[in-house]
Amino acid sequence: MSVQAIAWSPSGAVRIVDQRALPEDHVTRDLDTVEQMVEAIRTLQVRGAPLIGIAAAMGLVAGLRELRAAPREAFLTRLDTLAVLLGTARPTAVNLRWALDRMVSAAHATPGDAAVVWERLQAEATAIWEEDRAMCRRIGESGLALLTDGAKVLTHCNAGALATGGIGTALAPIYLAHDAGRQFHVFVGESRPVLQGSRLTAWELTHAGIPCTVIADAAAGALMRAAQVDLVLVGADRIAANGDFANKIGTYGLAVLARHHGVPFYCAAPWSTVDVTVPDGDAIPIEQRPLEEVTTVAGRRVAPSAAAALNPAFDVTPARYVTGYLTDRGLVKPPFAA
Amino acid sequence: MSVQAIAWSPSGAVRIVDQRALPEDHVTRDLDTVEQMVEAIRTLQVRGAPLIGIAAAMGLVAGLRELRAAPREAFLTRLDTLAVLLGTARPTAVNLRWALDRMVSAAHATPGDAAVVWERLQAEATAIWEEDRAMCRRIGESGLALLTDGAKVLTHCNAGALATGGIGTALAPIYLAHDAGRQFHVFVGESRPVLQGSRLTAWELTHAGIPCTVIADAAAGALMRAAQVDLVLVGADRIAANGDFANKIGTYGLAVLARHHGVPFYCAAPWSTVDVTVPDGDAIPIEQRPLEEVTTVAGRRVAPSAAAALNPAFDVTPARYVTGYLTDRGLVKPPFAA
Repeated sequence: MSVQAIAWSPSGAVRIVDQRALPEDHVTRDLDTVEQMVEAIRTLQVRGAPLIGIAAAMGLVAGLRELRAAPREAFLTRLDTLAVLLGTARPTAVNLRWALDRMVSAAHATPGDAAVVWERLQAEATAIWEEDRAMCRRIGESGLALLTDGAKVLTHCNAGALATGGIGTALAPIYLAHDAGRQFHVFVGESRPVLQGSRLTAWELTHAGIPCTVIADAAAGALMRAAQVDLVLVGADRIAANGDFANKIGTYGLAVLARHHGVPFYCAAPWSTVDVTVPDGDAIPIEQRPLEEVTTVAGRRVAPSAAAALNPAFDVTPARYVTGYLTDRGLVKPPFAA
Repeated sequence: MSVQAIAWSPSGAVRIVDQRALPEDHVTRDLDTVEQMVEAIRTLQVRGAPLIGIAAAMGLVAGLRELRAAPREAFLTRLDTLAVLLGTARPTAVNLRWALDRMVSAAHATPGDAAVVWERLQAEATAIWEEDRAMCRRIGESGLALLTDGAKVLTHCNAGALATGGIGTALAPIYLAHDAGRQFHVFVGESRPVLQGSRLTAWELTHAGIPCTVIADAAAGALMRAAQVDLVLVGADRIAANGDFANKIGTYGLAVLARHHGVPFYCAAPWSTVDVTVPDGDAIPIEQRPLEEVTTVAGRRVAPSAAAALNPAFDVTPARYVTGYLTDRGLVKPPFAA
């Protein structure tokens, strides 16, 4: 069974799996304030485009618990401030702002005092989460036919249960195919620098009893050349109107390799990942993360201090490399409109 | 100035830079026996195809010092045994066996007692080293025209001074261009799992005052797509007669990306890397290294114990992806004959 990445705690805090501790330790943490949630999102305790949207929404609810007796205007002003704060925690994923906008709109559209508005926010955050679970399942169903018996699938980074409120995006068809008793094998690119592939995807797959093999990212080419990959399945952090999409650094290289070797390449994401205000991939902002993620490993320096480094967290894969988009609206093709 | 990776110690031992300690510490070690040298080669204290050939030859000399008073036949029998032992330390690089064969042939062809044969071995090992230094320089000269002012070069793994007895193979044109006052920039793929790019190449380049930037291997595609790479320069561990070559895992992926983006892709290696007994890349043995190199980082587990892993140390790049081969015989094209 897939892991549950987020939940309400009995006290109304947001209970997360601290993804920094995986795969060695399965630690849950209860976050009581928006500041704690911002820190958790920024430091990748909680990550994955769909999950950080859910986490931000739930974080607003937890963080506003103490203000339920405040005047309505003070409550809404504080909500707006906290939403802005949460919105700056990560720049690339559109889901974060999508979820926050939805929460803010719901609050302002709800008449009544702060307690009523807060109840509405709690219902809205829970709805965002529940809808995400249903979305994951529909994404899985839209890709299930790709996971035939004997298939060898390559995935990158983590677009699984640990990235969503449900069974993931790119991993959703994998979970459903496993539940259906199909036999297949998953290769997981480790996804340097933060190693979400080896630390998270391999962990959640083995946790669910699905066989997988971790490779260095640089081994993907040799694997494809040896005809060991029938299918590439990746997630997305933002999809532009023309179908270009941003995902974990290395996704574009896999897309080129897949094209070169005639391997089908699918992008799996909830429809909320589509940002129709962004015409193409060039307009997607790319987060540059701390250079220490590249120059140090487990606290040990692996590059000399005199060397420069680059650490773009994402790259953009143009739509022309994508065989299809697996979404909660089924298998779709660009251009995408609202 | 480039670092010197190997030398004779005053006592006649082989003095190496222990490459496991870089980039944090610049440690030299004196190896007195062949067993120590085998261990040093196997554990990557000494690595790089040309350097392990030199190191094996020098290791034979150091390890046979004590047998100079032995009967000739006993000396030669021991030499043959030690050469076989050294030959098994790493399977892919042809230079190792090439250097050992040359040492064994020189010994058997030298008349006289063990002391005389040993003197010949010492001269032969020193000659192998000196020839390598000269080879590096000629490789550099054959590629110097590629390093124009403003060039942006991408290299992978370490094919530099730390991989040879001289100024390297892929890095040789870079050192010569730097000496000539040219301004250019080197991007270095970190080269997971062992990180020879960030740990060794970035270290030796910055040690020599050459500006460089370390990237995760998975960032190469985005860098090429952003037109930040004018040239890819890599080394080789073995080149087949048809020009297919084995090099650090990830080289093939870079070759595909370079082809896709119209970026020239050069393989730099001494002529001794060409193995004319191997018709094509399919016949090159690929070393599978310990899985812990992928599943742990700096002693910390990064993949769950239930996950499998693959760790091929090399991949094969077919000749059709290679713009040219920079060798000590100049810029050459396959097929290669003895």
